Amino acid sequence: MKLLEDRIRKDGKVRAGNILKVDSFLNHQMDIELFEELGKEFKRRFADCEVNKILTIEASGIGIACITAQYFKVPVVFAKKSKTKNIAGDVYTAKVESFTHGREYEIIVSKDFLGPKDKVLIIDDFLANGSALMGLSKLVLDAGATLLGAGIVIEKGFQDGGRLLREKGLRIESLAIIDSMDTTYGIEFRH
Amino acid sequence: MKLLEDRIRKDGKVRAGNILKVDSFLNHQMDIELFEELGKEFKRRFADCEVNKILTIEASGIGIACITAQYFKVPVVFAKKSKTKNIAGDVYTAKVESFTHGREYEIIVSKDFLGPKDKVLIIDDFLANGSALMGLSKLVLDAGATLLGAGIVIEKGFQDGGRLLREKGLRIESLAIIDSMDTTYGIEFRH
Repeated sequence: MKLLEDRIRKDGKVRAGNILKVDSFLNHQMDIELFEELGKEFKRRFADCEVNKILTIEASGIGIACITAQYFKVPVVFAKKSKTKNIAGDVYTAKVESFTHGREYEIIVSKDFLGPKDKVLIIDDFLANGSALMGLSKLVLDAGATLLGAGIVIEKGFQDGGRLLREKGLRIESLAIIDSMDTTYGIEFRH
Repeated sequence: MKLLEDRIRKDGKVRAGNILKVDSFLNHQMDIELFEELGKEFKRRFADCEVNKILTIEASGIGIACITAQYFKVPVVFAKKSKTKNIAGDVYTAKVESFTHGREYEIIVSKDFLGPKDKVLIIDDFLANGSALMGLSKLVLDAGATLLGAGIVIEKGFQDGGRLLREKGLRIESLAIIDSMDTTYGIEFRH
Protein backbone atom coordinates (compact mmCIF):
# COMPACT_ATOMS: atom_id res chain seq x y z
CA MET A 1 0.00 0.00 0.00
CA LYS A 2 1.77 3.06 -1.33
CA LEU A 3 0.36 5.55 1.22
CA LEU A 4 1.73 3.43 4.04
CA GLU A 5 5.09 2.74 2.40
CA ASP A 6 5.56 6.46 1.77
CA ARG A 7 4.76 7.18 5.42
CA ILE A 8 7.19 4.52 6.65
CA ARG A 9 9.94 5.97 4.43
CA LYS A 10 9.15 9.50 5.62
CA ASP A 11 8.67 8.97 9.35
CA GLY A 12 9.99 5.49 10.14
CA LYS A 13 13.42 5.20 11.71
CA VAL A 14 15.62 2.16 11.23
CA ARG A 15 17.66 1.26 14.31
CA ALA A 16 20.36 -1.36 14.87
CA GLY A 17 19.02 -4.82 15.72
CA ASN A 18 16.32 -4.80 13.02
CA ILE A 19 14.18 -2.35 14.95
CA LEU A 20 11.87 -0.11 12.96
CA LYS A 21 10.56 2.81 14.96
CA VAL A 22 7.18 3.92 13.69
CA ASP A 23 6.02 5.31 16.98
CA SER A 24 5.27 8.75 15.55
CA PHE A 25 2.23 7.43 13.66
CA LEU A 26 1.55 3.75 14.44
CA ASN A 27 2.25 2.48 17.93
CA HIS A 28 2.77 5.28 20.43
CA GLN A 29 1.36 8.33 18.71
CA MET A 30 -1.39 7.12 16.35
CA ASP A 31 -2.39 8.95 13.17
CA ILE A 32 -6.10 8.19 13.11
CA GLU A 33 -6.65 9.55 9.60
CA LEU A 34 -3.99 7.11 8.36
CA PHE A 35 -5.66 4.33 10.38
CA GLU A 36 -8.91 5.05 8.52
CA GLU A 37 -7.16 4.44 5.22
CA LEU A 38 -5.56 1.25 6.55
CA GLY A 39 -8.94 0.07 7.84
CA LYS A 40 -10.58 0.66 4.45
CA GLU A 41 -7.78 -1.28 2.76
CA PHE A 42 -8.22 -4.26 5.15
CA LYS A 43 -11.94 -4.19 4.35
CA ARG A 44 -11.19 -4.15 0.61
CA ARG A 45 -8.77 -7.08 0.88
CA PHE A 46 -11.10 -9.18 3.04
CA ALA A 47 -14.29 -8.09 1.26
CA ASP A 48 -14.99 -11.74 0.35
CA CYS A 49 -15.03 -12.80 4.03
CA GLU A 50 -18.00 -12.74 6.38
CA VAL A 51 -16.05 -11.51 9.38
CA ASN A 52 -18.12 -11.17 12.57
CA LYS A 53 -15.33 -10.46 15.05
CA ILE A 54 -11.89 -8.86 15.02
CA LEU A 55 -9.25 -10.18 17.39
CA THR A 56 -6.12 -8.26 18.31
CA ILE A 57 -3.58 -8.08 21.11
CA GLU A 58 -2.85 -5.30 23.56
CA ALA A 59 -1.61 -2.69 23.39
CA SER A 60 -0.55 -1.41 20.00
CA GLY A 61 -2.95 -3.58 17.99
CA ILE A 62 -6.04 -2.11 19.63
CA GLY A 63 -6.17 1.23 17.84
CA ILE A 64 -5.88 -0.13 14.33
CA ALA A 65 -8.27 -2.99 15.17
CA CYS A 66 -10.95 -0.59 16.45
CA ILE A 67 -10.76 1.73 13.46
CA THR A 68 -10.77 -1.27 11.08
CA ALA A 69 -13.79 -2.76 12.87
CA GLN A 70 -15.87 0.25 11.83
CA TYR A 71 -15.63 -0.82 8.19
CA PHE A 72 -16.61 -4.42 9.00
CA LYS A 73 -19.26 -3.31 11.54
CA VAL A 74 -18.13 -5.94 14.05
CA PRO A 75 -16.90 -5.90 17.66
CA VAL A 76 -13.23 -6.18 18.63
CA VAL A 77 -11.78 -8.50 21.25
CA PHE A 78 -8.26 -7.89 22.45
CA ALA A 79 -6.11 -10.59 24.00
CA LYS A 80 -4.65 -9.47 27.32
CA LYS A 81 -1.08 -9.99 28.38
CA SER A 82 -1.61 -10.71 32.04
CA LYS A 83 -4.33 -11.92 34.32
CA THR A 84 -6.25 -9.29 36.27
CA LYS A 85 -8.97 -9.38 38.91
CA ASN A 86 -11.48 -8.48 36.21
CA ILE A 87 -11.00 -11.68 34.22
CA ALA A 88 -12.79 -14.82 35.36
CA GLY A 89 -11.03 -18.18 35.38
CA ASP A 90 -12.43 -19.38 32.09
CA VAL A 91 -9.96 -18.18 29.54
CA TYR A 92 -8.14 -19.44 26.47
CA THR A 93 -4.39 -18.98 26.77
CA ALA A 94 -1.31 -19.05 24.56
CA LYS A 95 2.35 -18.29 25.03
CA VAL A 96 3.97 -15.50 23.03
CA GLU A 97 7.62 -14.56 22.71
CA SER A 98 8.08 -10.81 22.40
CA PHE A 99 10.71 -9.54 19.98
CA THR A 100 10.39 -6.00 21.34
CA HIS A 101 10.50 -6.86 25.02
CA GLY A 102 12.85 -9.84 24.78
CA ARG A 103 10.75 -12.12 26.98
CA GLU A 104 7.95 -14.67 26.94
CA TYR A 105 4.47 -13.90 28.22
CA GLU A 106 1.00 -15.39 28.27
CA ILE A 107 -1.97 -14.00 26.36
CA ILE A 108 -5.53 -14.69 27.37
CA VAL A 109 -9.04 -14.22 26.04
CA SER A 110 -12.17 -14.88 28.07
CA LYS A 111 -14.18 -17.85 26.83
CA ASP A 112 -17.22 -15.54 26.97
CA PHE A 113 -15.96 -13.59 23.94
CA LEU A 114 -14.62 -16.23 21.56
CA GLY A 115 -16.57 -19.31 20.50
CA PRO A 116 -17.67 -21.62 17.68
CA LYS A 117 -19.95 -19.01 16.07
CA ASP A 118 -17.17 -16.47 15.63
CA LYS A 119 -15.62 -15.85 12.20
CA VAL A 120 -12.46 -14.10 13.15
CA LEU A 121 -10.15 -11.68 11.41
CA ILE A 122 -6.95 -11.03 13.37
CA ILE A 123 -5.57 -7.50 13.11
CA ASP A 124 -2.15 -6.47 14.39
CA ASP A 125 0.38 -3.73 13.80
CA PHE A 126 3.48 -5.88 13.24
CA LEU A 127 4.41 -9.35 12.01
CA ALA A 128 8.03 -10.41 12.53
CA ASN A 129 8.83 -13.82 13.99
CA GLY A 130 5.11 -14.57 14.04
CA SER A 131 4.91 -15.48 17.70
CA ALA A 132 2.02 -13.12 18.52
CA LEU A 133 0.10 -14.18 15.42
CA MET A 134 0.65 -17.86 16.23
CA GLY A 135 -0.60 -17.26 19.76
CA LEU A 136 -3.69 -15.41 18.54
CA SER A 137 -4.37 -18.16 15.98
CA LYS A 138 -4.15 -20.75 18.76
CA LEU A 139 -6.75 -18.84 20.81
CA VAL A 140 -9.13 -18.82 17.83
CA LEU A 141 -8.67 -22.53 17.12
CA ASP A 142 -8.94 -23.49 20.82
CA ALA A 143 -12.25 -21.60 20.93
CA GLY A 144 -13.59 -23.62 17.98
CA ALA A 145 -14.00 -20.38 16.04
CA THR A 146 -13.27 -19.94 12.33
CA LEU A 147 -10.02 -18.16 11.49
CA LEU A 148 -10.54 -16.24 8.26
CA GLY A 149 -7.15 -14.57 8.10
CA ALA A 150 -4.87 -11.92 9.49
CA GLY A 151 -4.46 -8.29 8.49
CA ILE A 152 -1.07 -6.85 9.37
CA VAL A 153 0.06 -3.25 9.00
CA ILE A 154 3.82 -3.88 8.67
CA GLU A 155 5.42 -7.27 8.01
CA LYS A 156 9.15 -7.73 8.41
CA GLY A 157 9.47 -10.02 5.38
CA PHE A 158 13.08 -10.82 6.21
CA GLN A 159 11.97 -12.64 9.35
CA ASP A 160 10.30 -16.05 9.25
CA GLY A 161 6.85 -15.49 10.74
CA GLY A 162 4.92 -14.62 7.59
CA ARG A 163 6.38 -17.47 5.53
CA LEU A 164 5.85 -20.11 8.23
CA LEU A 165 2.25 -19.09 8.88
CA ARG A 166 1.36 -18.85 5.18
CA GLU A 167 2.82 -22.35 4.69
CA LYS A 168 0.45 -23.54 7.42
CA GLY A 169 -2.41 -22.16 5.33
CA LEU A 170 -3.12 -18.90 7.12
CA ARG A 171 -4.23 -16.11 4.83
CA ILE A 172 -2.17 -13.03 5.69
CA GLU A 173 -2.66 -9.62 4.13
CA SER A 174 0.17 -7.26 5.05
CA LEU A 175 -0.22 -3.66 3.94
CA ALA A 176 3.56 -3.15 3.79
CA ILE A 177 6.15 -5.92 3.60
CA ILE A 178 9.75 -4.94 4.27
CA ASP A 179 12.28 -7.12 2.45
CA SER A 180 15.30 -5.43 3.95
CA MET A 181 16.15 -2.48 6.11
CA ASP A 182 19.43 -0.94 6.99
CA THR A 183 20.51 2.10 8.97
CA THR A 184 22.59 3.23 5.97
CA TYR A 185 20.71 2.00 2.89
CA GLY A 186 17.18 2.46 4.18
CA ILE A 187 14.12 0.30 3.56
CA GLU A 188 13.25 -2.00 0.64
CA PHE A 189 9.61 -3.02 0.24
CA ARG A 190 8.34 -6.22 -1.43
CA HIS A 191 6.03 -5.72 -4.44
CA MET B 1 -25.77 9.40 28.95
CA LYS B 2 -28.83 7.19 28.85
CA LEU B 3 -27.62 4.83 26.09
CA LEU B 4 -24.53 4.03 28.17
CA GLU B 5 -26.38 3.71 31.48
CA ASP B 6 -28.86 1.33 29.88
CA ARG B 7 -26.02 -0.75 28.52
CA ILE B 8 -24.26 -0.87 31.90
CA ARG B 9 -27.51 -1.99 33.57
CA LYS B 10 -28.07 -4.62 30.87
CA ASP B 11 -24.58 -6.08 30.46
CA GLY B 12 -22.53 -4.84 33.42
CA LYS B 13 -21.91 -7.20 36.29
CA VAL B 14 -21.34 -5.99 39.83
CA ARG B 15 -18.84 -8.08 41.78
CA ALA B 16 -17.76 -7.99 45.39
CA GLY B 17 -14.99 -5.48 46.12
CA ASN B 18 -16.57 -2.65 44.09
CA ILE B 19 -15.66 -4.31 40.83
CA LEU B 20 -17.86 -3.55 37.83
CA LYS B 21 -17.32 -5.96 34.96
CA VAL B 22 -18.10 -4.33 31.64
CA ASP B 23 -15.77 -6.50 29.65
CA SER B 24 -18.48 -7.64 27.25
CA PHE B 25 -18.64 -4.20 25.61
CA LEU B 26 -16.00 -1.82 27.00
CA ASN B 27 -12.64 -3.23 27.99
CA HIS B 28 -12.09 -6.75 26.69
CA GLN B 29 -14.69 -7.14 23.97
CA MET B 30 -15.36 -3.68 22.54
CA ASP B 31 -18.66 -2.65 20.97
CA ILE B 32 -17.41 -0.26 18.30
CA GLU B 33 -20.89 1.03 17.40
CA LEU B 34 -21.35 2.02 21.05
CA PHE B 35 -17.87 3.60 21.01
CA GLU B 36 -18.98 5.77 18.07
CA GLU B 37 -21.85 7.12 20.13
CA LEU B 38 -19.54 7.72 23.11
CA GLY B 39 -17.05 9.50 20.83
CA LYS B 40 -19.76 11.77 19.43
CA GLU B 41 -20.88 12.62 22.96
CA PHE B 42 -17.32 13.52 24.03
CA LYS B 43 -17.10 15.78 20.97
CA ARG B 44 -20.42 17.42 21.88
CA ARG B 45 -19.33 18.03 25.47
CA PHE B 46 -15.91 19.41 24.51
CA ALA B 47 -17.15 21.25 21.40
CA ASP B 48 -15.90 24.54 22.88
CA CYS B 49 -12.32 23.25 23.16
CA GLU B 50 -9.65 23.41 20.47
CA VAL B 51 -8.24 19.96 21.17
CA ASN B 52 -5.27 19.01 19.00
CA LYS B 53 -4.24 15.78 20.73
CA ILE B 54 -5.92 13.02 22.70
CA LEU B 55 -3.93 11.28 25.43
CA THR B 56 -4.89 7.92 26.90
CA ILE B 57 -3.28 5.00 28.68
CA GLU B 58 -2.82 1.42 27.58
CA ALA B 59 -4.58 -0.86 27.17
CA SER B 60 -8.28 -0.38 27.62
CA GLY B 61 -8.28 3.38 26.99
CA ILE B 62 -6.88 3.02 23.49
CA GLY B 63 -10.01 1.84 21.68
CA ILE B 64 -12.33 4.54 22.96
CA ALA B 65 -9.60 7.18 22.48
CA CYS B 66 -9.07 6.20 18.82
CA ILE B 67 -12.77 6.20 17.96
CA THR B 68 -13.25 9.52 19.78
CA ALA B 69 -10.26 11.04 17.95
CA GLN B 70 -12.11 10.62 14.66
CA TYR B 71 -14.67 13.23 15.74
CA PHE B 72 -11.96 15.68 16.83
CA LYS B 73 -9.75 14.87 13.81
CA VAL B 74 -6.64 14.69 15.99
CA PRO B 75 -3.96 12.07 16.71
CA VAL B 76 -3.92 9.89 19.82
CA VAL B 77 -0.94 9.29 22.09
CA PHE B 78 -1.12 6.47 24.58
CA ALA B 79 0.98 6.36 27.73
CA LYS B 80 2.82 3.05 28.07
CA LYS B 81 3.07 1.04 31.24
CA SER B 82 6.62 -0.26 30.91
CA LYS B 83 9.76 0.68 29.10
CA THR B 84 10.55 -1.21 25.91
CA LYS B 85 13.45 -1.23 23.48
CA ASN B 86 11.37 0.89 21.13
CA ILE B 87 11.20 3.87 23.46
CA ALA B 88 14.13 6.25 23.56
CA GLY B 89 15.40 7.61 26.86
CA ASP B 90 13.65 10.93 26.63
CA VAL B 91 10.29 10.32 28.25
CA TYR B 92 7.93 11.95 30.70
CA THR B 93 7.03 9.64 33.55
CA ALA B 94 4.47 9.35 36.33
CA LYS B 95 3.57 6.75 38.93
CA VAL B 96 0.11 5.17 38.90
CA GLU B 97 -1.53 2.90 41.43
CA SER B 98 -3.78 0.32 39.79
CA PHE B 99 -7.08 -0.51 41.44
CA THR B 100 -7.64 -3.47 39.12
CA HIS B 101 -4.17 -4.97 39.36
CA GLY B 102 -3.46 -4.03 42.98
CA ARG B 103 0.03 -2.65 42.33
CA GLU B 104 1.96 0.47 41.41
CA TYR B 105 3.49 1.00 37.99
CA GLU B 106 5.15 3.68 35.94
CA ILE B 107 3.61 5.28 32.87
CA ILE B 108 5.67 6.97 30.20
CA VAL B 109 5.19 9.13 27.12
CA SER B 110 7.98 10.00 24.72
CA LYS B 111 8.94 13.68 24.76
CA ASP B 112 8.65 13.56 20.97
CA PHE B 113 4.87 13.31 21.19
CA LEU B 114 3.86 15.70 23.93
CA GLY B 115 5.00 19.32 24.11
CA PRO B 116 4.07 22.97 24.70
CA LYS B 117 2.00 23.26 21.49
CA ASP B 118 -0.32 20.41 22.46
CA LYS B 119 -3.85 21.11 23.67
CA VAL B 120 -4.72 17.83 25.26
CA LEU B 121 -7.94 16.03 26.00
CA ILE B 122 -7.43 12.93 28.15
CA ILE B 123 -9.76 10.01 27.38
CA ASP B 124 -10.04 6.91 29.55
CA ASP B 125 -12.52 4.13 30.19
CA PHE B 126 -12.69 4.35 34.01
CA LEU B 127 -12.21 6.88 36.76
CA ALA B 128 -12.15 5.51 40.32
CA ASN B 129 -9.43 6.60 42.74
CA GLY B 130 -8.09 8.94 40.05
CA SER B 131 -4.56 7.62 40.09
CA ALA B 132 -4.34 7.03 36.33
CA LEU B 133 -5.90 10.40 35.56
CA MET B 134 -3.53 12.14 38.00
CA GLY B 135 -0.59 10.42 36.32
CA LEU B 136 -1.76 11.39 32.85
CA SER B 137 -2.34 14.98 34.00
CA LYS B 138 1.20 15.09 35.37
CA LEU B 139 2.59 13.97 31.99
CA VAL B 140 0.69 16.77 30.24
CA LEU B 141 1.85 19.43 32.72
CA ASP B 142 5.46 18.16 32.73
CA ALA B 143 5.43 18.49 28.93
CA GLY B 144 4.32 22.11 29.17
CA ALA B 145 1.18 21.23 27.20
CA THR B 146 -2.30 22.61 27.87
CA LEU B 147 -4.67 20.25 29.66
CA LEU B 148 -8.20 21.01 28.45
CA GLY B 149 -9.99 18.29 30.36
CA ALA B 150 -10.73 14.62 30.67
CA GLY B 151 -13.46 12.52 29.10
CA ILE B 152 -14.29 9.39 31.06
CA VAL B 153 -16.67 6.61 30.06
CA ILE B 154 -17.56 5.34 33.55
CA GLU B 155 -16.81 7.18 36.79
CA LYS B 156 -17.16 5.42 40.11
CA GLY B 157 -18.62 8.45 41.89
CA PHE B 158 -18.45 6.76 45.28
CA GLN B 159 -14.64 6.79 45.08
CA ASP B 160 -12.62 9.96 45.58
CA GLY B 161 -10.82 10.48 42.29
CA GLY B 162 -13.38 12.59 40.46
CA ARG B 163 -14.05 14.91 43.41
CA LEU B 164 -10.36 15.45 44.19
CA LEU B 165 -9.43 16.22 40.60
CA ARG B 166 -12.41 18.53 40.02
CA GLU B 167 -11.43 20.39 43.21
CA LYS B 168 -7.99 20.90 41.66
CA GLY B 169 -9.71 22.55 38.70
CA LEU B 170 -9.66 19.73 36.17
CA ARG B 171 -12.68 19.66 33.89
CA ILE B 172 -14.00 16.11 33.84
CA GLU B 173 -16.88 14.92 31.69
CA SER B 174 -17.98 11.41 32.67
CA LEU B 175 -20.60 9.79 30.45
CA ALA B 176 -21.92 7.67 33.33
CA ILE B 177 -21.35 8.34 37.03
CA ILE B 178 -22.15 5.52 39.42
CA ASP B 179 -23.21 6.72 42.85
CA SER B 180 -23.54 3.27 44.34
CA MET B 181 -23.44 -0.33 43.24
CA ASP B 182 -24.26 -3.49 45.04
CA THR B 183 -24.41 -7.14 44.09
CA THR B 184 -27.98 -7.30 45.46
CA TYR B 185 -29.46 -3.84 44.83
CA GLY B 186 -27.75 -3.09 41.53
CA ILE B 187 -26.42 0.21 40.21
CA GLU B 188 -27.50 3.79 41.00
CA PHE B 189 -26.43 6.52 38.58
CA ARG B 190 -25.92 10.21 39.41
CA HIS B 191 -28.08 12.67 37.45
